[in-house]
Amino acid sequence: MTAWVYGFGDGRADGDASMKNLLGGKGANLAEMASLGLPVPPGFTITTEASIAFFEKNRSLPDGVEDEVAAALAVVENQVGRQLGDAAKPLLVSVRSGAPVSMPGMMDTVLNLGLNDETVEGLAAESGDARFAYDSYRRFIQMYGNVVLGMSHGDFEEILDDVKDEEGVFEDAALPAEALKDLVGRYRRLVKETLGKDFPQDPREQLWGAIHAVFDSWMNQRAIDYRAIHDIAEDLGTAVNVQAMVFGNMGEDCATGVAFTRNPDTGAKAVFGEFLVNAQGEDVVAGLRTPHPIGRLNEPDGTSMQELMPKAFDELMRIQDLLERHYRDMQDVEFTVEKDKLWMLQTRGGKRGIQAALKIATDMVEEGLIDKAGALMRIDPKDLDRLLHPVPDPRAPRKVIARGLPGSPGAASGIAVFTADDAQAMSGDGKAVILVRPETSPEDIHGMHAARGILTKHGGQTSHAALVARGMGRPCVTGAGHIRVDVDGGQFSIGDVTIKRGDTITIDGSTGEVIQGEIPTIEPELSPEFATLMTWADELRSLRVRANAETPEDAKKAREFGAEGIGLCRTEHMFFDSDRIIAMREMIMAEDEAGRRAPLDRILPMQRADFVELFHIMAGLPITIRLLDPPLHEFLPTSQHELEELANHMGSDVEHVRIRAGSLRELNPMLGHRGCRLGISYPEIYEMQARAIFEAAVKAEKQAGEAVLLEIMIPLVATRQELDILKRRIDDVAEAVRQETGGDPRYVTGTMIELPRAALRAGEIAETAEFFSFGTNDLTQTTFGISRDDSGRFLDRYQHEGIFETDPFVSIDRDGVGELVEIATERGRASRADLKLGICGEHGGDPASITFCQEIGLDYVSCSPFRVPIARLAAAQAAVKAG
Amino acid sequence: MTAWVYGFGDGRADGDASMKNLLGGKGANLAEMASLGLPVPPGFTITTEASIAFFEKNRSLPDGVEDEVAAALAVVENQVGRQLGDAAKPLLVSVRSGAPVSMPGMMDTVLNLGLNDETVEGLAAESGDARFAYDSYRRFIQMYGNVVLGMSHGDFEEILDDVKDEEGVFEDAALPAEALKDLVGRYRRLVKETLGKDFPQDPREQLWGAIHAVFDSWMNQRAIDYRAIHDIAEDLGTAVNVQAMVFGNMGEDCATGVAFTRNPDTGAKAVFGEFLVNAQGEDVVAGLRTPHPIGRLNEPDGTSMQELMPKAFDELMRIQDLLERHYRDMQDVEFTVEKDKLWMLQTRGGKRGIQAALKIATDMVEEGLIDKAGALMRIDPKDLDRLLHPVPDPRAPRKVIARGLPGSPGAASGIAVFTADDAQAMSGDGKAVILVRPETSPEDIHGMHAARGILTKHGGQTSHAALVARGMGRPCVTGAGHIRVDVDGGQFSIGDVTIKRGDTITIDGSTGEVIQGEIPTIEPELSPEFATLMTWADELRSLRVRANAETPEDAKKAREFGAEGIGLCRTEHMFFDSDRIIAMREMIMAEDEAGRRAPLDRILPMQRADFVELFHIMAGLPITIRLLDPPLHEFLPTSQHELEELANHMGSDVEHVRIRAGSLRELNPMLGHRGCRLGISYPEIYEMQARAIFEAAVKAEKQAGEAVLLEIMIPLVATRQELDILKRRIDDVAEAVRQETGGDPRYVTGTMIELPRAALRAGEIAETAEFFSFGTNDLTQTTFGISRDDSGRFLDRYQHEGIFETDPFVSIDRDGVGELVEIATERGRASRADLKLGICGEHGGDPASITFCQEIGLDYVSCSPFRVPIARLAAAQAAVKAG
Repeated sequence: MTAWVYGFGDGRADGDASMKNLLGGKGANLAEMASLGLPVPPGFTITTEASIAFFEKNRSLPDGVEDEVAAALAVVENQVGRQLGDAAKPLLVSVRSGAPVSMPGMMDTVLNLGLNDETVEGLAAESGDARFAYDSYRRFIQMYGNVVLGMSHGDFEEILDDVKDEEGVFEDAALPAEALKDLVGRYRRLVKETLGKDFPQDPREQLWGAIHAVFDSWMNQRAIDYRAIHDIAEDLGTAVNVQAMVFGNMGEDCATGVAFTRNPDTGAKAVFGEFLVNAQGEDVVAGLRTPHPIGRLNEPDGTSMQELMPKAFDELMRIQDLLERHYRDMQDVEFTVEKDKLWMLQTRGGKRGIQAALKIATDMVEEGLIDKAGALMRIDPKDLDRLLHPVPDPRAPRKVIARGLPGSPGAASGIAVFTADDAQAMSGDGKAVILVRPETSPEDIHGMHAARGILTKHGGQTSHAALVARGMGRPCVTGAGHIRVDVDGGQFSIGDVTIKRGDTITIDGSTGEVIQGEIPTIEPELSPEFATLMTWADELRSLRVRANAETPEDAKKAREFGAEGIGLCRTEHMFFDSDRIIAMREMIMAEDEAGRRAPLDRILPMQRADFVELFHIMAGLPITIRLLDPPLHEFLPTSQHELEELANHMGSDVEHVRIRAGSLRELNPMLGHRGCRLGISYPEIYEMQARAIFEAAVKAEKQAGEAVLLEIMIPLVATRQELDILKRRIDDVAEAVRQETGGDPRYVTGTMIELPRAALRAGEIAETAEFFSFGTNDLTQTTFGISRDDSGRFLDRYQHEGIFETDPFVSIDRDGVGELVEIATERGRASRADLKLGICGEHGGDPASITFCQEIGLDYVSCSPFRVPIARLAAAQAAVKAG
Repeated sequence: MTAWVYGFGDGRADGDASMKNLLGGKGANLAEMASLGLPVPPGFTITTEASIAFFEKNRSLPDGVEDEVAAALAVVENQVGRQLGDAAKPLLVSVRSGAPVSMPGMMDTVLNLGLNDETVEGLAAESGDARFAYDSYRRFIQMYGNVVLGMSHGDFEEILDDVKDEEGVFEDAALPAEALKDLVGRYRRLVKETLGKDFPQDPREQLWGAIHAVFDSWMNQRAIDYRAIHDIAEDLGTAVNVQAMVFGNMGEDCATGVAFTRNPDTGAKAVFGEFLVNAQGEDVVAGLRTPHPIGRLNEPDGTSMQELMPKAFDELMRIQDLLERHYRDMQDVEFTVEKDKLWMLQTRGGKRGIQAALKIATDMVEEGLIDKAGALMRIDPKDLDRLLHPVPDPRAPRKVIARGLPGSPGAASGIAVFTADDAQAMSGDGKAVILVRPETSPEDIHGMHAARGILTKHGGQTSHAALVARGMGRPCVTGAGHIRVDVDGGQFSIGDVTIKRGDTITIDGSTGEVIQGEIPTIEPELSPEFATLMTWADELRSLRVRANAETPEDAKKAREFGAEGIGLCRTEHMFFDSDRIIAMREMIMAEDEAGRRAPLDRILPMQRADFVELFHIMAGLPITIRLLDPPLHEFLPTSQHELEELANHMGSDVEHVRIRAGSLRELNPMLGHRGCRLGISYPEIYEMQARAIFEAAVKAEKQAGEAVLLEIMIPLVATRQELDILKRRIDDVAEAVRQETGGDPRYVTGTMIELPRAALRAGEIAETAEFFSFGTNDLTQTTFGISRDDSGRFLDRYQHEGIFETDPFVSIDRDGVGELVEIATERGRASRADLKLGICGEHGGDPASITFCQEIGLDYVSCSPFRVPIARLAAAQAAVKAG
């Protein structure tokens, strides 16, 4: 039989902290504290299962709940020696929601339940404070009226204001008992007038009304929206906690407060918290009175809890210490002092900033509270991102002119330009530029590469702009919906401010701020705790971590962040510079082999020099170079300027160039003539690249006296035959370079697995390929049949409708794409036992996806340089979880 | 140990007809005939394995071949009582290629081998005919010089012409013996001068030279090209047949000829063949003399073999009858009569027209030669296509102005138009139009639908134009490269002929002809043999055959051709009519739900009426209706006219409409916002369609008193959730229609499986879906990551390089796409045992793909109406093969 109700209090409890899913976070921790013998007002928790059944049964409670609540209530009455509705010693209770995942303020709470015209007199007599009793009663009616009876909060407030006017006072607390008694009368008349029936006087009726209302509040619009935003499952349900009231507002020996066991900003081990004398929790929240610190200040002023309530303070310190040791984590507690006695109302893991989290985790290892693995598990890898990027100097004055979404972290300043082409030209002139677009498309890629940062009006955090910027390590602000971008006019405006082409702006991709003018940015200083934690992560992880990088800056950054090699050097990205893209375009637009050979001959020495530099930077580490894979539309000229420039270079006329570009345009470029298909059709392209690579390797090896660890990767393979043909050609070039130079470049040849067919045929592909790199971006596109560039129109809706729990381009779809990766892993290893396996899509920097990579036994992940630390930590966590 | 050489002759043979792969077609059948005791000149076959080894060993023969040839030669010498090189009784041999698959004329042959200055005298003496002997010798030198020694054929011909001039004769046959002897001398001098060495006099040297040369010829350019065109594998290799010569040119009691066991044009069982008295085979081919019929004509004229050589004729008839009964198939034989004795040189299955094939197959069943299954296996399903389409009346005069490729069969006449838009407008005015385009793209689809036929300058038989036209059943000529299409000028021209917009043309998609003016077309008459064969096919097949159809004409045609239901009704194709596409565009372009509702309200009654008609036509048969799946770019307005018309309808201005269309344009529409994604985003669309379907079903059921067998299909599903959401909405509409009409439409709901993820997740999808229809077009696109629309740029190269054996869009890729179909079949049936499974892509009409469908146990295939008979036959063949 299911138990619907779990009691706690008086040194024992039916549940414990492990039962968060059943009892909610609050209920589970109350039970745990009770079991630890801590002073917890007794009460009971109605389970989340009851809430689920409640909604399944059309908002009615399942059989058995009523009886179990009655029994649990009797226990509470017995423990506190009070009865619900007893005129002399009335039991008052709070009824609070408590979901498995914290949803602060989203659901409803009823306090002081049990008060009626009779019990209020009992409470007055017992406390010797009629003002307190009637104030509690009027609060209860107001709260219950709003939450349970569905009345307007404002209607009550109006009456309260009337009474204050009549009494000539400004604060609620200044109302005398008689006025409050009158207020209660008026409240009750309001209820009667509005609902046509009396405010319920039967405390049991009150209790059931409140329980129903709290369950109901799981499905209020606010809660639904919050869950949607925070990715919390609808079917978790909420628990309801019914607990004997204790009062922090019964006099000067009463108080209420919140405290952290360590400083949540810095992580330092020190007293941290605030409290209010003679107050209820809601007073702290309302902010009408300023709370005081718990601990004594350097200059004691007699306002701290330590000074005012030394006994309760010492008890709080003892309990905090005990809780922290018990939970082995920094705690965030709520407490009430009633007549000098401390009561604990809540404990939970405390929220903290990333720097504090690092300090706490490393300190706790030093204190022997947790071990290294435990420390690593405490840090959310994604939070590291905030530590790594430049930020605008916080001391510099700033004029924020607009706000968008944080698309890609970091800050950048530069002059505003409005086309990719302009970005490239101005950047070529040595200017720092920020590319401002209504939105970006693959045709803007070269401009995004040339820019220091990107600002778009449209698009969210998984828009094209955000994804590409993140991949390139460029700061980006997306979805700055209030700006008006006038591309033709070369300006954007917001309100009265107009930013013209050439004006300087700063964007902060970590906050979404758009700032007028230049703000100096500061490079973050990485704390010693960060370094310590990274060392531990490296000790524990088994997955290797590489970076996706092709420029010298990115490669250096990658090494600095601990990358163990390059997992993806996208050679097409080496052609975005303005002097090179012309050659690249000429090559793509050529109508025959001779037409391609000429620009390729110009490109060869540039590529070779690039590779030599890259090999020096990455000396001693493996480098996977992917041969050219340009989706054609990223390189075709579009603007008049581009067409003219290209025509000039090609000695052709603009119209001819325009027609040729048109004939190359593809309906579905993602599924078009790219990757190895281009390599098969135009052998001279890959031959040039192979030559550049091998010649560079020979040169670098001669200079450094150390072998370059070369991995040559063929993109977009669907059949083994493609790989066979291209590998043969590469081998031929290597042999030629050996003959010509006398050097002996060593390399392995492998392929991207980024098409479903390649995954399925991995067995035979691995007969030729010496390594696989899973290109999960493209694999996700083809497995789902969804273009990442076009998915913006429906992805939101899909997440909203629960079709996608998470965006499959952000976190790998285990069920579909993941199965293909697994199939390829098994089949590949079956035919080549030492096949090296890695992943180099966006997922390579996503912790959930990294866990998946660990589970299926890949050798490494590769991600953008700034994600390397995240991946190192996530890999360590995955290893710890794998045991 | 491998045997490299197989002997035959004198009533016995080492091989037999089943060994075609090893002995080649010619060698295997020679062995078979020898075993049957037929008069076959003795000889031996060097195997294809020797040929494969030959190329692996850098064009040298493997060990053992030499010895085995020597032994086999000795047996032949023994059997005919002659020795190679013997001056008195010389053995002469032919050396012929013989691949496993017939490649007529592609490889080399050497006849009369063994002649030299000595043996020619022996031959002269023995035959008593010096002219014959020297003619044979000079033919040998010429052939050997060309084939083995690599000399120019023309150089020999020049000398021959000189000698004829000198002798004052016009025909080779008129040259006297002395002149021929002189000619031999001159030939030998030519060899000496050209090569610096004598023509080889050693018959063994001649033999090895010829064997090498024939093996070599497997890799001559002509043979390579032929194999590429005819899809013949490179690694089959060829056999070499060495056989004792018999002479049809040794006098008036000699002859050579070819014969068929039945009439290859009509299939009638009658003497059919031609022969030449006193001639060698090459004389028949050269066409210098007119051969005579074998059988006596109605008016006997004394020229037939039956009259001239009655004994040999009777023997030939006896052997033909024996061979046909033995092979159970119509045979094509070559024979030589040497001094009244008949020798069989070759037999093989005779080529025949499709009508003849049908007659022969059904006759043979009647004759008890083969059974029904055997008859079905004799017909290539693809050949049926030629019987089904209208053809231009062959009696009508025609002016062929251009020739292209047969893109989609059938003939059509109409006025030439040059844009899809114009096609639609003119067709809307009741005109028959032929759409002429440089090439077509998805944006032309509505115009292709409106046209009677399509003509393109570019593209092959798997181009967009060809594929779409075939799917729609429209005749199409593609790749008419010589026409110049001027779209802006509204005309096309070829040579002096210019066809202007409005001029009438006729295209014949079965032949590729483009004809000026109108030619009446005639509907084909289907023979009784066709009907008989189809009946047998239906008896034997287990796969059901449905049609892809949505218009009344197509549905009627489908029923006429024996479709057992509609497997794919593409509702978006019901919107191509000019009055509807406007509403459709308005709906797509709307910016909110209200904007979509208005056009949907106009569309609803049209859809409903369409469905009512369709349900009547298909009464009693199941109909799968796919809800809307428009790749957006097929419906967006592009031309100025379209934009203006739409703006008019929407009460908007052109600029606004242009901008909106631009914002809807997708980078990769195939992977974009289409299929069920549109259904999820805009619920009102599928709701309207479901309503139209259910209301139509209720109406049709009332009228017909018979239930409509409805299958509602959701396209482009990637996750079970999509299907769940949409099925719920459809069920709601059904319930509403029940309430409103009192009818009770019955239906099942299923999904396309056309994305790799859907195939992988088939288990859970089948928990909701009651049937799967494999959309293998899209599944092929996503599995390979290749857009069918864009693949033209590299598919040719891919087939040429052997990366694709066949175009995966034509015949299903068993290894990749096929595995996904199998996975989905297994997983789907595991969770729903009675899941109905079919295929509705282009592959549904492809025999090889149908075999695959049978093997993995699908329930049905669905294809375009004209392919239904093909599918019925292919399904029967697949069932027979499956045993």
